[in-house]
Amino acid sequence: MSASALRVGIAGLGTVGAGTVRLLRVNSDLIAARAGRPVVVTAVSARERHRERGIDVSDLAWHADPVALVSDPDVDVVVELIGGAEGPAARVVEAALSAGKPVVTANKALIAVHGARLAAAAERAGVALAFEAAVAGGIPVIKALREGLAADRLRRVGGILNGTCNYILTAMRETGRDFGVILAEAQALGYAEADPSTDVDGIDAAHKLAILAALAFGRPVDFASVHVEGIRRIGAADIGFARELGYRIKLLGIARHTAEGVEARVHPCLVPETAPIALVDGVFNAVVAEGDFVGRVMLEGRGAGAGPTATAVVADLIDVARGSLVPVWGAWQAALFEQTSVPMSSHRGDYYLRLTVLDRPGVIAEIAAVLRDCGVSLKSMLQHGRAATGTSDEAVALVLVTHETEERSMMEVVGRLSGLDVVVEAPAMIRIEPG
Amino acid sequence: MSASALRVGIAGLGTVGAGTVRLLRVNSDLIAARAGRPVVVTAVSARERHRERGIDVSDLAWHADPVALVSDPDVDVVVELIGGAEGPAARVVEAALSAGKPVVTANKALIAVHGARLAAAAERAGVALAFEAAVAGGIPVIKALREGLAADRLRRVGGILNGTCNYILTAMRETGRDFGVILAEAQALGYAEADPSTDVDGIDAAHKLAILAALAFGRPVDFASVHVEGIRRIGAADIGFARELGYRIKLLGIARHTAEGVEARVHPCLVPETAPIALVDGVFNAVVAEGDFVGRVMLEGRGAGAGPTATAVVADLIDVARGSLVPVWGAWQAALFEQTSVPMSSHRGDYYLRLTVLDRPGVIAEIAAVLRDCGVSLKSMLQHGRAATGTSDEAVALVLVTHETEERSMMEVVGRLSGLDVVVEAPAMIRIEPG
Repeated sequence: MSASALRVGIAGLGTVGAGTVRLLRVNSDLIAARAGRPVVVTAVSARERHRERGIDVSDLAWHADPVALVSDPDVDVVVELIGGAEGPAARVVEAALSAGKPVVTANKALIAVHGARLAAAAERAGVALAFEAAVAGGIPVIKALREGLAADRLRRVGGILNGTCNYILTAMRETGRDFGVILAEAQALGYAEADPSTDVDGIDAAHKLAILAALAFGRPVDFASVHVEGIRRIGAADIGFARELGYRIKLLGIARHTAEGVEARVHPCLVPETAPIALVDGVFNAVVAEGDFVGRVMLEGRGAGAGPTATAVVADLIDVARGSLVPVWGAWQAALFEQTSVPMSSHRGDYYLRLTVLDRPGVIAEIAAVLRDCGVSLKSMLQHGRAATGTSDEAVALVLVTHETEERSMMEVVGRLSGLDVVVEAPAMIRIEPG
Repeated sequence: MSASALRVGIAGLGTVGAGTVRLLRVNSDLIAARAGRPVVVTAVSARERHRERGIDVSDLAWHADPVALVSDPDVDVVVELIGGAEGPAARVVEAALSAGKPVVTANKALIAVHGARLAAAAERAGVALAFEAAVAGGIPVIKALREGLAADRLRRVGGILNGTCNYILTAMRETGRDFGVILAEAQALGYAEADPSTDVDGIDAAHKLAILAALAFGRPVDFASVHVEGIRRIGAADIGFARELGYRIKLLGIARHTAEGVEARVHPCLVPETAPIALVDGVFNAVVAEGDFVGRVMLEGRGAGAGPTATAVVADLIDVARGSLVPVWGAWQAALFEQTSVPMSSHRGDYYLRLTVLDRPGVIAEIAAVLRDCGVSLKSMLQHGRAATGTSDEAVALVLVTHETEERSMMEVVGRLSGLDVVVEAPAMIRIEPG
């Protein structure tokens, strides 16, 4: 171990930052053996200097301004763990690349939104911009796509990309309780943030999906083209009906590469309860990739948390220490190419539709006529509630499952059904995925 | 794409060899984009020159002697797909490394048996010795362990490493039929070789486990220390009893790193039917790794076949083309260290024991006394057959499940039970794993 140490500056000492410092210390011998030289933290930056983090940072250089960390002569590589697509995180990464220092980051928003520009800067500087920790925590999914599956033409990539949503949906299924109750519980347990919108509205998963799609299909990362829906509108009723129909509800991110272009979407899905991805519960993440030669590969593990995320950050540091320099997006900028984004309205699939209708004669005929007029054919129908006991004006739930159809037809169906007098609430539409 | 091409010589044109040629041709544009330069096959070697392989090799240099391929000046990297731990495969790889040419191989036997010596040769020559295709086909598990999880101290690695055995055990469970019948069927379908012993006796899985354990724990690869049992003795009765007890039977390879040293073993296991690995069926493989910081990571996909295996071979070629040079075993030779191998007799776990006993009064008391005398405590017992209708001298099956105990105690139990007059067949012992 005579080689000189790789000196690391860490910007951001939240859970992941503190976990990274801890991991580099606890496993220092093993990391040095694998990296071929010691990997040591020399400098840090965070908002508050004196805060209890479970680690001692008193022997490290302290920079109140994270951008100053970059110009510290004792910093060879900058680890950005501040978060956010703009602001100090972006400034630190830009400054590091301009200074010709490699960057390791866990920042999915930054990479999803500015990843194309930052990769070009890294390429010009001839340094690494690594973000294994940005997607699926400790699961080495970036490396799998960028290197392990580099020989194959991938057609589909995605999976369960947000542990908070998966925890909430799992708990809703297990307890039968509603979204709001479980969210409050998840917040109390630390599985959901005080402001949960980035997670529960699907934005975090969409950041990750944009990154996976860019790597899988060799296109410049394009967050804006991802269709995003969250899980707030999933009710206990939907979880129950899904179970009855043999499905589970998961928030999936799915990107497909077809002859028409790239379809990228994050939304709740009904998946068959026997599909491998349906069985991934709680805070676990799973990423599925499908290619022409390799078939289907699935990677599963903890998608968040200090420990798993820190292993991904330090794996990237080991790559930097080893001197490996792989193109940021799996191919150099000149070899990436824009690909048409397929709009959500062109998506084809089966659909679940839950209606709240008045329990009157002729209701089903009226609804069936709307579907027929829009060219949508029914696979099955479920009705619970008062129907068997005669007619009344009470509202009952009616669940429809369609055969494969185009999203634009379903949009028309939903619009027309919403206009019917007998439909008393906004219809709940959930897409069905094979898993 | 102005950079010079990486010129590939392939020794061995069986299923995987032909698949590799095909993949390099079909995906040539994509592979060149990712590798930064074209990757082209220039020379091949195989036993028969003119054989239908579904690929045209007439424009490639032909070497009757695979070792001659190495000295072909138009070959930059040698791909060894001959197979076998000795003979021509070993000679080709040794010659290539001696000549300072990087090697990519799918040969698990060679790497498991001679991997330490060959890695030393590769390290001296300063060239890559890559074997992603040797374990779990298209699943990038070597890369995951050697790079993706390099920051963590792994405690356990293993999984379903042989698709033939998993296919047979899955088919036995689904059809209720016996090993021999399903094996014959698997042979007819091409899922099992004419001589199936390498697969069904666990040797192939043991080769792969030895490789995984070396990577995970940073020790020189040590095939000889792996305990190996195959699946020939698993009967339809065991599959049935396992189901009744809430388990499935899988051939697992498991390596653990404990305070006592490294335990590495391949044998049939009862795993709880709800464990993720219990749900991996048919020809699929799954590899599980557990570390202090990362927790549990599972990778699943096709473990064999031309397509998946070729993607792993070509991923390694892309790494070579990119100029990446990672230590063969995750750390340079000097940083690997011998670790005590824990003998199988020290293994601790729960055990399943199926006895065929005469249906007489006092039999259970006699058997229970043996367990008591050996210090083994029972968790549950299942008896099927004639017991309820009175006593007779017909043989019935008796299944015992123990609490955690040491293997040496179970060996004593099995020995003593075999000696009892009322036990009419050799007891069938299967270890129980948490999954």
